[in-house]
Amino acid sequence: MRATLIYGAGDIRVEEVPDAAIRQPTDAVVRVLRSCVCGSDLWPYASQPAAERGRRIGHEFLGVVEDIGADVGGLARGDLVVAPFMFSDNSCEFCREGLQTSCRHGGMWGVGDVDGGQGEAVRVPQAQGTLVKLPVAEDSALLPSLLTLSDVFPTGHHCAVKAGVGPRTTVTVIGDGAVGLSAVLAAKRLGAERIILLGRHKDRTDLGVEFGATDVVAERGEEGVAKVRELTGGKGTHTVLECVGLEDAVNTALRVVRAGGVVSRVGAPQYGRVALGTASFLKNITFTGGVAPARAYIEELLPDVLEGRVQPGRVFDRTVALADTAAGYSAMADRSALKVLIRP
Amino acid sequence: MRATLIYGAGDIRVEEVPDAAIRQPTDAVVRVLRSCVCGSDLWPYASQPAAERGRRIGHEFLGVVEDIGADVGGLARGDLVVAPFMFSDNSCEFCREGLQTSCRHGGMWGVGDVDGGQGEAVRVPQAQGTLVKLPVAEDSALLPSLLTLSDVFPTGHHCAVKAGVGPRTTVTVIGDGAVGLSAVLAAKRLGAERIILLGRHKDRTDLGVEFGATDVVAERGEEGVAKVRELTGGKGTHTVLECVGLEDAVNTALRVVRAGGVVSRVGAPQYGRVALGTASFLKNITFTGGVAPARAYIEELLPDVLEGRVQPGRVFDRTVALADTAAGYSAMADRSALKVLIRP
Repeated sequence: MRATLIYGAGDIRVEEVPDAAIRQPTDAVVRVLRSCVCGSDLWPYASQPAAERGRRIGHEFLGVVEDIGADVGGLARGDLVVAPFMFSDNSCEFCREGLQTSCRHGGMWGVGDVDGGQGEAVRVPQAQGTLVKLPVAEDSALLPSLLTLSDVFPTGHHCAVKAGVGPRTTVTVIGDGAVGLSAVLAAKRLGAERIILLGRHKDRTDLGVEFGATDVVAERGEEGVAKVRELTGGKGTHTVLECVGLEDAVNTALRVVRAGGVVSRVGAPQYGRVALGTASFLKNITFTGGVAPARAYIEELLPDVLEGRVQPGRVFDRTVALADTAAGYSAMADRSALKVLIRP
Repeated sequence: MRATLIYGAGDIRVEEVPDAAIRQPTDAVVRVLRSCVCGSDLWPYASQPAAERGRRIGHEFLGVVEDIGADVGGLARGDLVVAPFMFSDNSCEFCREGLQTSCRHGGMWGVGDVDGGQGEAVRVPQAQGTLVKLPVAEDSALLPSLLTLSDVFPTGHHCAVKAGVGPRTTVTVIGDGAVGLSAVLAAKRLGAERIILLGRHKDRTDLGVEFGATDVVAERGEEGVAKVRELTGGKGTHTVLECVGLEDAVNTALRVVRAGGVVSRVGAPQYGRVALGTASFLKNITFTGGVAPARAYIEELLPDVLEGRVQPGRVFDRTVALADTAAGYSAMADRSALKVLIRP
């Protein structure tokens, strides 16, 4: 079969790899119908040192169960399923608490001998716990939105949930990438009436407004902070959803959050330390978030997607064939595409 | 009247100052019955540059209302009252949310023209919102425990509340100072069954055990972390109450907290940045806490103190006269005293 590998910064190749096949009785094999490129894939794409051997990449996919191990219950060949961006047994003590990203038997796609998601098929460890059945056909128009259940929509949702967003909460979302826009959609879905979106790409913030943003702040740095304060009577917002992962974004978040408020981050941290000294101590700021346990949220979010109440798949603005995955990375890296769907 | 001033590191003097008197119709004057030295007073005592003019110090006191301004309701001369460690109107939008430390009309004792608490009397701004009446006599044996309502007990309580401590929560408390021991007491009061206290002063951790600690870890650094992990099956505790304020303590907290858990800090930060990069992101760690809005908690904690269900005043292990306040600071700084009570 063919799958995507990264050989270093800017070097994405689609090559022949060993066919996905059952190795453990808890495995399943999924033929991929749709996968996509994640903003977090762009970090290695920007900076990974060149290597002789490629590394499998991609962690968002949905597809059809082709084979199942002897210990996998609840799934059958032919089921259409979505995989969250980490696999998990969904039964250990952490999974039972909704923290499948810390599963005792879980892990990441594309690490070690685990397949990546950007390929023709994937061997899925812990398949019973990991995969969620989708009651649609292979040609469903909902596939893009259903694919977002793998990562980007639950990630935005996790950011909002950890921040405590609700009907009485004011929200600032930092970042107009696919995660930021998903966070806007999630905050709106949770009832937030005031959602200020910080972003400077008008086509993206326009989608943010359609997703529920009430205000758009295109200014950056000092001016952006001043603008949010102006919009909130000098106070800032109860919650700030940090969807970038850069230190500047975190610093902006800490400056626009209201006293007693929460900064929730889901941008993969490109920083090691956070400025949580005396100023945030005196304001009783909470800093939370982290890698989203997408698996914990799929059943909750699925009905709204199936019934069209939310359309998170609108973040996909380009589709490429698997062979053209490298072009998809390039388009996302130069920001000519927001999020790229891959059809094997 | 006489009051305490700090002239620089190690230089505490009790001197004549202008008598406390009403200046605003929202003021009251309180004759101090008991005040005390706070762990946070030890930071300027350790490092404040020497100055020609002293600065008033002390922010914990209880006493008797001697005079009240025209706009102060609910109080009368002769009332015995406790003051939280910041004053507040208790009616602005932040106060109504229980965040009196961010009160629009609030402030700190000993700053600008506001009296410090370590003196014979204090002019109390925003007296109606700030002072809480205590139904006891001037010679009550409960005065030490009631004085802790000013700061140290609500600070420990705030730390535990922000961490979400409850019956199903495991807790690590870092620090065996008066705040750490108060956090143990607060965690026990909130129902925590497992409370691991990190501290190496046996007389203090012994009191911690009486307050409710189930385990004491005297080891520091790597060894302390290993010990907490050993006690928790390798996982760490759901919550960590950081009651020191040093970077080392915060780093220890981040290493003993369970995935999905909360580090809550109330130690005045002697650090500017916190190591909340990839490791804590992947573990979904929440970092919270801050300066405690003591005023928000006094009514809730008061009945337990009055009825003897908790005895937070046991943290006081030495009493000095106002004239000997400097000796009290010295004893706390060299750790021969845990917390020093001052009787003007």
